[in-house]
Amino acid sequence: MSTQNIYDDPAFFEGYAKLPRSAAGLDAAPEWPTLRAMLPDLAGKRVLDLGCGYGWFCRWAREAGAAQVEGFDVSERMLARAAADTQDPAIRYARADLETVELAERAYDLVYSSLALHYVGAFDRLLAQVKRALVPGGAFVASMEHPLLTAPSRPGWVKREDGRVWPLNAYLREGPRHVNWIAEGVIKQHRSIGTIVTALLRAGFTLTHLVEWGPDAAQLAADPSLETELDRPTFLLVGARG
Amino acid sequence: MSTQNIYDDPAFFEGYAKLPRSAAGLDAAPEWPTLRAMLPDLAGKRVLDLGCGYGWFCRWAREAGAAQVEGFDVSERMLARAAADTQDPAIRYARADLETVELAERAYDLVYSSLALHYVGAFDRLLAQVKRALVPGGAFVASMEHPLLTAPSRPGWVKREDGRVWPLNAYLREGPRHVNWIAEGVIKQHRSIGTIVTALLRAGFTLTHLVEWGPDAAQLAADPSLETELDRPTFLLVGARG
Repeated sequence: MSTQNIYDDPAFFEGYAKLPRSAAGLDAAPEWPTLRAMLPDLAGKRVLDLGCGYGWFCRWAREAGAAQVEGFDVSERMLARAAADTQDPAIRYARADLETVELAERAYDLVYSSLALHYVGAFDRLLAQVKRALVPGGAFVASMEHPLLTAPSRPGWVKREDGRVWPLNAYLREGPRHVNWIAEGVIKQHRSIGTIVTALLRAGFTLTHLVEWGPDAAQLAADPSLETELDRPTFLLVGARG
Repeated sequence: MSTQNIYDDPAFFEGYAKLPRSAAGLDAAPEWPTLRAMLPDLAGKRVLDLGCGYGWFCRWAREAGAAQVEGFDVSERMLARAAADTQDPAIRYARADLETVELAERAYDLVYSSLALHYVGAFDRLLAQVKRALVPGGAFVASMEHPLLTAPSRPGWVKREDGRVWPLNAYLREGPRHVNWIAEGVIKQHRSIGTIVTALLRAGFTLTHLVEWGPDAAQLAADPSLETELDRPTFLLVGARG
């Protein structure tokens, strides 16, 4: 099985390119300050980014002092854009499918992944690869779509006179979800928080962080639309020690 | 602050006594087999049950080989019934409010709690007490109401032509919830899964289990009403090492 590579669909790619986080990078992602605070000191470290997209994080990691950075992505278009935007011989991009990727043993101090794992069906397999690829005590820090976002059979806010509600069902019915996000028929893999954390523990990780991300007061003041996050969070952030 | 002691309200107590898990004990609780599998071997161990109710677990722990068992509860009525049902000098019951309880240091190999923590406001304080009360490497195993159950401003299934949905909102708005369960005006404390796990990690625990409980196929066949659990789970189970 290989990941659906929707990012190489021209219409999807064009839509994705217009998202604030695509155009403006890490600082346009409201969860980034929280995710950044979960990272270890990167000075002199070897870093791998699974699902590197345009390479924003890879370049940031180098600025933060990493000695070498690798970025893997399944999308040729993403990698082409990442390469075009990067002038740094210590950053290397490569094509890899997270369903089948084989990682070198004890090769990294940090494995990072932003909003890619909810596309991966072979989750346990990938975690075993990440565990193997980390030096002992190395860090795995990842964001993914929150399971509350992926669970419902019909996602979408429902208006009520006192606000909005999220029509939750099927939370423990895990597996693929066919949704429309930028393009039609995007396939996401729904897993509960319990399953995600249990998979990490079974792969031999020690859990260090579990964050259901919500905006702080300053972010809410700057962007009131983030208030929906308080009703149903969009991002799940995890940190673990290998 | 002290916990609302709804269990000593006569009407509530009478209603509670009629629940299957009250009348028939652990085996009437569908999540019990999963919770039991999270427990360490109890042979010769010292056990504390926080929110012991009628003492079902305390008596089970002794049958499972525990050397001594203490059960704490805020409800005099519960404790009176527990004492009446128990003939075992190695089981001791005591009145304690989980908001303010002071536990002896390194006194227990297992601290257990079933469906009590969602009443506790001073959660971090209690976890610090539990950590202190455990021998190094001791186990903390607890169930609580799932945050998806406690979150909504108006909990209750909403029928839809394709089934049911749970009207989720306010998931990240933590704090007290005034709900009607058996009696009116029961106060529960809503916390997200992220907050619960982060509190455990900050208290110095190592997370060993995180289970959003759902029925297995045999349980579903025996009790089809459990299917609602697959849409929105009722129980969150956590295990940690002190």
